[in-house]
Amino acid sequence: MSTRITLLAGGVGGARLAHGFALALPDGGSVGPDGGLTAVVNVGDDTERHGLLVSPDLDTVMYTLAGLNDETRGWGLTDETYTTLDQLARLGEDTWFTLGDRDLATHVVRTAALREGQPLSAVTTRLATALGVRARLLPVTDDRLRTLVDTPSGRVAFQEYFVRRHHADAVLGVELDGASAARPGPGVLDALASADLLVVAPSNPFLSVEPVLAVPGVRDAVLASRARRVAVSPIVGGQAIKGPAAQILETLGHEVSALGVARLYAGLVDVMVVDDVDAALAAPIRDLGLEVLVTDTIMGGPAGRERLARDLLALG
Amino acid sequence: MSTRITLLAGGVGGARLAHGFALALPDGGSVGPDGGLTAVVNVGDDTERHGLLVSPDLDTVMYTLAGLNDETRGWGLTDETYTTLDQLARLGEDTWFTLGDRDLATHVVRTAALREGQPLSAVTTRLATALGVRARLLPVTDDRLRTLVDTPSGRVAFQEYFVRRHHADAVLGVELDGASAARPGPGVLDALASADLLVVAPSNPFLSVEPVLAVPGVRDAVLASRARRVAVSPIVGGQAIKGPAAQILETLGHEVSALGVARLYAGLVDVMVVDDVDAALAAPIRDLGLEVLVTDTIMGGPAGRERLARDLLALG
Repeated sequence: MSTRITLLAGGVGGARLAHGFALALPDGGSVGPDGGLTAVVNVGDDTERHGLLVSPDLDTVMYTLAGLNDETRGWGLTDETYTTLDQLARLGEDTWFTLGDRDLATHVVRTAALREGQPLSAVTTRLATALGVRARLLPVTDDRLRTLVDTPSGRVAFQEYFVRRHHADAVLGVELDGASAARPGPGVLDALASADLLVVAPSNPFLSVEPVLAVPGVRDAVLASRARRVAVSPIVGGQAIKGPAAQILETLGHEVSALGVARLYAGLVDVMVVDDVDAALAAPIRDLGLEVLVTDTIMGGPAGRERLARDLLALG
Repeated sequence: MSTRITLLAGGVGGARLAHGFALALPDGGSVGPDGGLTAVVNVGDDTERHGLLVSPDLDTVMYTLAGLNDETRGWGLTDETYTTLDQLARLGEDTWFTLGDRDLATHVVRTAALREGQPLSAVTTRLATALGVRARLLPVTDDRLRTLVDTPSGRVAFQEYFVRRHHADAVLGVELDGASAARPGPGVLDALASADLLVVAPSNPFLSVEPVLAVPGVRDAVLASRARRVAVSPIVGGQAIKGPAAQILETLGHEVSALGVARLYAGLVDVMVVDDVDAALAAPIRDLGLEVLVTDTIMGGPAGRERLARDLLALG
């Protein structure tokens, strides 16, 4: 199998599908002349906590590819301890954003590198390599891009909405601060242009995928790509696998279904991938001009992830 | 007892004597109109590790006053774990400087505060207060001051000499980088001017006390003070209680004894405090024009620290 896969990824959904490709491709998705996996990852949910830069989506993809992700929670490392966080609380810090002791090492190294003027992409490569990740992990941009969420009580930073307020607020809109001035990170446009298969992960369309596409040049590169372009619906049976995608579709006036997602991605991708339970939506999705693959899109464990990745590879 | 004590302190010796005063004074040495303890602490051994500012002497004094210091090692917190440090090593960081998980919280908070433009003195007060320290802890300066050590293999940063190379090199000289441009931190000159008793802790004269005195204005304030000025010898029976003070005295051409230390401090202090085992040195020290107090200066546990503090208070 020699296919160049480029995956546009947010957090958990992106991480699981990346893991599937890493299992399905030779050498864990290592990128060489014959192909491999490049994950282009959202950075709009990056945040600074206690002076440390945290990149939750990059880390979820990295830890998942390294086999270190806490699969129960979906984020952070397995077997974590919280000694430093407890002490930060004792020192008067507001510790609503949970950071484990091992996870902290990632943020410490990343923050030190950025303060020294290294780009996020370079330290991401270094961290991923140190953890044994073979696939290529690219932040969509090295520039500052922050997702802000408009709620009935005002505009808040993404993690304020997502973690601190448990994504309980209605999302009236999403602002991507810095997006228009951001430049695609090194390798991003090449990975889109040279892909054989370009996959939009089953991540939140508004909070994870749009911040990737919004970096000037990225959406155009997807549209110009000669790859097969495929999107996997994050909505299954009218519900989000994880997170607030369903509520956001609803408050923003979209149908809460794989069809609603397909309408968002029509014109961007060639193929919509929906779960078996949504087989009845295949016909209306085809009416949008999209091909449809109906398969099991629930990626519980490694076997399910690899199976879905192989289904997608068969499209490429 | 209503005495204003100002202690010039390095790490372990300064911390133990500060602890003694905190035990001997009302309300843990809390500073009020009636007196209290102000520790003016060396910052020359501050260092940056993994992008975090570490202030070893401030932390040793702070942790000791908070009852949290690891008394076996002399530094760091009791019952520490090293999860983050292990992970930092896995990520490729050079982890020769040991940082525990709880200790890290101090450095994270301090670094974030400094990056936001807060002075070291302000974050020191905040950290010490959060840990329940009642005495006042003042870095001698908020400006950058770094002790560099000249060794046969060249000039190295203090922690490179002290921790990484286990203070095994001969010390040919000490350079205090930044000292001449440093300004005394807020409260330092006041604490020296208003003291009833001014104590030079049994800390290393070259590596701990001199970087305090070298901040322009500090030595003059000590000399101008109307307080009783007392120095406790860090050399007992010809040996250092802890650390490389004995070797440094020798390589720099001084007598390795409480008398050698007294010669360094003659003109700066009024009273030299030497251990019972050095009673025979009282006469030659008096010949230098100094008063001498001979007492038990070994501060093993809290009782010994408090007893020595009370001996010193009786001088004031």
